[in-house]
Amino acid sequence: MQDMSMRNVTARDYHHVILVLNEWWSGRAIADMLPKLFFEHFCDTGFVLERDGEILGFLVGFMSQSEPGEAYIHFVGVSPKCRKSGAGQRLYQAFFEVVRERGAHVVRCLTSPVNTVSIAYHQRMGFTIEPGDKRIDGIDVHTDYDGPGQDRVLFVRSIER
Amino acid sequence: MQDMSMRNVTARDYHHVILVLNEWWSGRAIADMLPKLFFEHFCDTGFVLERDGEILGFLVGFMSQSEPGEAYIHFVGVSPKCRKSGAGQRLYQAFFEVVRERGAHVVRCLTSPVNTVSIAYHQRMGFTIEPGDKRIDGIDVHTDYDGPGQDRVLFVRSIER
Repeated sequence: MQDMSMRNVTARDYHHVILVLNEWWSGRAIADMLPKLFFEHFCDTGFVLERDGEILGFLVGFMSQSEPGEAYIHFVGVSPKCRKSGAGQRLYQAFFEVVRERGAHVVRCLTSPVNTVSIAYHQRMGFTIEPGDKRIDGIDVHTDYDGPGQDRVLFVRSIER
Repeated sequence: MQDMSMRNVTARDYHHVILVLNEWWSGRAIADMLPKLFFEHFCDTGFVLERDGEILGFLVGFMSQSEPGEAYIHFVGVSPKCRKSGAGQRLYQAFFEVVRERGAHVVRCLTSPVNTVSIAYHQRMGFTIEPGDKRIDGIDVHTDYDGPGQDRVLFVRSIER
């Protein structure tokens, strides 16, 4: 991974990211969940990892504007050819650092209960799972969190030094 | 409309909004475009209009975190029974005022080219259409703006006094 470089995300990255996401996630329709606004208005807290001009990973998130001291990660994607390379960890760490500088002491994010790989990954990254209104396979879940039928697992992590 | 009251949006409003949106928009799947995060982290710049505890309109938007002086409106919905009542105008004006206080001088938003009602509405509200890469029925359009096949019309409005 030493040969990958990290920089802040820009609006011009959006179309590249959307195109590769459809490959990385085997054709699931992602664009509705990831409108361009996250690449237009939250560039200071978003990052891409690239090698030879090819985007191999990205993270978009922001400082909460109504919850003081909180930051939120909306979307993280890493190319299948870079999995288990530490690329994801580099992106999360960069986010933790920039939002800590801006006054955040807590980072939140979420995933779907079916995404057991993501759940395990966030736990390894130091996130804890928030209590839910039900448990699925031992995991706390919030029913209909993102709309009808859209259950979510909620993560929280302190980033205080 | 004098009997409708306005207040800031809260996380608890989300489930009510998602349920009524499916009625207001005749069953189109909206939830993917409107995750709960907009009701969790941007409450200070979001508003609901309600009467007798019933939500009849809402707006969610935010201050840009990387474009100084810019604010962005992500989603506005008004109940069909309140159309042409000035409800939308009250929501936009409330947003303009709060983001102006926070240092915004420009507000941006967008819509789909097929949504001619929305295009005309934004023009009446003082928005101008940004130059695009093609024109559809005389309207400037950005091809694939929000992903493949997701053309958008981009609006901008000065809110300087």
